Amino acid sequence: MKTVAVVSGGMDSVTLAHYLRSKNHELTLISFNYGQRHTKELAFADMCATRLNVPIHTVDVGSLQSVLSGSSLTTHTIDVPDGHYAEESMKATVVPNRNAIMISIAAGLAVSIDAEAVAVGVHGGDHFIYPDCRPEFIESIENSVKIANEGFLSSGFKILAPFLHKTKTDIAKLGNELEVPWTDTWSCYKGLDKHCGLCGTCVERKEAFSEAKLNDPTEYTSPPTAPV
Amino acid sequence: MKTVAVVSGGMDSVTLAHYLRSKNHELTLISFNYGQRHTKELAFADMCATRLNVPIHTVDVGSLQSVLSGSSLTTHTIDVPDGHYAEESMKATVVPNRNAIMISIAAGLAVSIDAEAVAVGVHGGDHFIYPDCRPEFIESIENSVKIANEGFLSSGFKILAPFLHKTKTDIAKLGNELEVPWTDTWSCYKGLDKHCGLCGTCVERKEAFSEAKLNDPTEYTSPPTAPV
Repeated sequence: MKTVAVVSGGMDSVTLAHYLRSKNHELTLISFNYGQRHTKELAFADMCATRLNVPIHTVDVGSLQSVLSGSSLTTHTIDVPDGHYAEESMKATVVPNRNAIMISIAAGLAVSIDAEAVAVGVHGGDHFIYPDCRPEFIESIENSVKIANEGFLSSGFKILAPFLHKTKTDIAKLGNELEVPWTDTWSCYKGLDKHCGLCGTCVERKEAFSEAKLNDPTEYTSPPTAPV
Repeated sequence: MKTVAVVSGGMDSVTLAHYLRSKNHELTLISFNYGQRHTKELAFADMCATRLNVPIHTVDVGSLQSVLSGSSLTTHTIDVPDGHYAEESMKATVVPNRNAIMISIAAGLAVSIDAEAVAVGVHGGDHFIYPDCRPEFIESIENSVKIANEGFLSSGFKILAPFLHKTKTDIAKLGNELEVPWTDTWSCYKGLDKHCGLCGTCVERKEAFSEAKLNDPTEYTSPPTAPV
């Protein structure tokens, strides 16, 4: 199956790409520069494409930064909140309609290259905070894309979200089996030299390795990673 | 009602903006540079914003040009076909998933500014050729946007498409009543000095004025506009 995979460079989407490769998908990756604070994640998406020897399109939608305001990820005057995703404060990391925008653009690429699917790495743990990571959204946007491109897209077109009912811990376990090189993935929203260890996605990353009983090779600034 | 209107600078969307103003909507306009051959239309969207004294966001998604290939509007090596929209050749003007992308971004802006609606100028005549201009698409994408932004968007959020069951001739009549300055609108896909008079959207423009029995003030290159 020819598939466009949305890859941010984080644990989930990089594992997604490796997983699809293991299932013999013919992959094209797509990543997005939407003015996020952590654009450095894009280099990790590129590494994934190089490693899997597949094409990647990096779409610059940086001018969306002025339109999608109110999120700490795109509005650099709003601090990235520290803490756990389950907390109310994490709403500050919601980027308005982000997944609908990314999936719509990825679907446009799918039409252009005659791909039969768009794959995204959303998982069960995202549902708490991001309404556009819920199963009902994936189902609805798949329907929208199919209608929007009727006659131009394979009638069997699918939005694949294989982790939709899995946890990030499941993803860590799967990635480990697939030998995903974790140090070549980037999660931290702050986008500094090292993972901060405090923001929602860092906390979630640590928790996933810990719950999966796996060694976490990530270097965190705080609390400092113990010297090896 | 606070409404984000997608305005390309053409007859339909400019009439849409004037119509919404006449219905007392508090408007914000949004236009898109997606690498289209006729970027000159964007200046006409700006004129509309200036005339109505409302804000406009021009979103540069020009890097989509490399992703949304296969359309004569974004792939400059493919000629814009001349003729009537109803013809098979007009499929070359379909930009993959364009309306889903634009509406998704406009909805992101709606979330950011607490607007209750996104309005688009799609009309009945678009249905022939553009699957993403059909009523079932508008209904589906409205549903997707509502799910994607639950808790962040007014529960009464709507995609407004007041011309969905109207013809371009109806739009010409309405625009005339609303005193839309037609020379401050741009249709031609070729984006040259004057409207070409031959491409699908020029043919449709001429037809609309003619069927509405209105004077068409547009200067066309071919056939040449008769000297006044």
